[in-house]
Amino acid sequence: MSLRIALGVDYEGSNYFGFQKQKATHQTIQGHLESSISKVADQEVKTYCSGRTDAGVHALLQVIHFDTTSSRSEFELIRGINSYLPGDIRVLWSKEVSESFHARFSAISRCYQYKIYNDKIFSGLWTKRSLFVTQNLDIASMQKASQYLLGEHDFSSFRGSGCQSKTAIREVEDIKVIKKDNIITIDIQANAFLLHMVRIIVGTLLMVAKRELDPEDIRTILNKKDRKIAGKTVSPSGLYFLGPKYPNNFDIPNFKNTFI
Amino acid sequence: MSLRIALGVDYEGSNYFGFQKQKATHQTIQGHLESSISKVADQEVKTYCSGRTDAGVHALLQVIHFDTTSSRSEFELIRGINSYLPGDIRVLWSKEVSESFHARFSAISRCYQYKIYNDKIFSGLWTKRSLFVTQNLDIASMQKASQYLLGEHDFSSFRGSGCQSKTAIREVEDIKVIKKDNIITIDIQANAFLLHMVRIIVGTLLMVAKRELDPEDIRTILNKKDRKIAGKTVSPSGLYFLGPKYPNNFDIPNFKNTFI
Repeated sequence: MSLRIALGVDYEGSNYFGFQKQKATHQTIQGHLESSISKVADQEVKTYCSGRTDAGVHALLQVIHFDTTSSRSEFELIRGINSYLPGDIRVLWSKEVSESFHARFSAISRCYQYKIYNDKIFSGLWTKRSLFVTQNLDIASMQKASQYLLGEHDFSSFRGSGCQSKTAIREVEDIKVIKKDNIITIDIQANAFLLHMVRIIVGTLLMVAKRELDPEDIRTILNKKDRKIAGKTVSPSGLYFLGPKYPNNFDIPNFKNTFI
Repeated sequence: MSLRIALGVDYEGSNYFGFQKQKATHQTIQGHLESSISKVADQEVKTYCSGRTDAGVHALLQVIHFDTTSSRSEFELIRGINSYLPGDIRVLWSKEVSESFHARFSAISRCYQYKIYNDKIFSGLWTKRSLFVTQNLDIASMQKASQYLLGEHDFSSFRGSGCQSKTAIREVEDIKVIKKDNIITIDIQANAFLLHMVRIIVGTLLMVAKRELDPEDIRTILNKKDRKIAGKTVSPSGLYFLGPKYPNNFDIPNFKNTFI
């Protein structure tokens, strides 16, 4: 009998060519997960994730699922898979789910966090985990600008080339810009994201923070639906996938909203 | 005319074979610093550090000094050296100091922090930055035990084999064990440290935390001066050199005491 298993996973993305498995010999999160799960299940498994992450992007909670006829306890799965994975990818929990659960299609929203290290001099300990910005940043304007993104919009201006989504319409449910000491965090929750959407939003909010744009210009940029007038795609190093949300009936552990 | 320059440096130690330069092709912090400084100064320089760190150990503030006849502004030095260094090693500040300053011999104390990730399941984001411990830990006993280390003692029981110090007498000036969420931090300040001293102290405090030893046993272990009865040398991944302290007259920036 086939079982569907969901796993919660976290990773430091610096050493990987992103989540998605590639034909080349590149190291990917999915490649490591599938080979480790297959060893424990003693059969080939195929995984599906809640949200792909690019090379260098981290995840505090990536949810994946796979089908297997092998029956292992939650504890055996976690311990077994982790014993094959590199240390910077860890299975956090395992859960048998109904056949109607799909890591990607059942998710009703996703949350990302972006970290900016805002100081005159950078830190070696933050290199792979933040974007370094030396300029003085106007946080109040950045906060004001961010609020124009709330709600349902066509995000074509904030869509990376190569994005394969049929539509650019997304709903931003929550967005928060917070500064604590020299770290600025931008939390964005949306029903779903376009390719590079968070990184282009952050690049554009940084233009506001540097007073190259007014907060109100965000509305114009949205309306123009033109990638060229938005900011640049900032580094993947500052990006953290906080996790997906699912309808309560699936009883999937929620992501933590308070990562600092 | 020769100038003496002090630099403040931080690094993520995971990718390096420790601070000290080695003849082999191993990557070391000192190796990268000396080759980068030499390029900027346009002459070979030799560096001295406030405290060597082992492979995998991180530093929030390592202070080094070197002599040079090249005259560069502080800003030129910081920017120039950082442009040659790998991103996970950064020069934080630069300062011309008197000839009487020596990064190692002028230091009057050093502070280290050790981080333990105490949970049932580990995190990929903490792998290179903490020690993972699953067992329930008795923090109150760990705190009580730590206080026996305060003051001047012969730390032979907490001294790694291969340590080249003439004496094992050190003065522990401050030691704090704090638990916040699932992270335990142990801060230790001493006039100087023996080889692996912090990691053996943490290994021994963990035996108390797991109730394999009583807090009072720390006094016995100190008195016996026998490495074999202390705990094991725990992983370098959890160890952070917070920085050295110098007499005020050198006007060297102090390390931050509040790293979490």
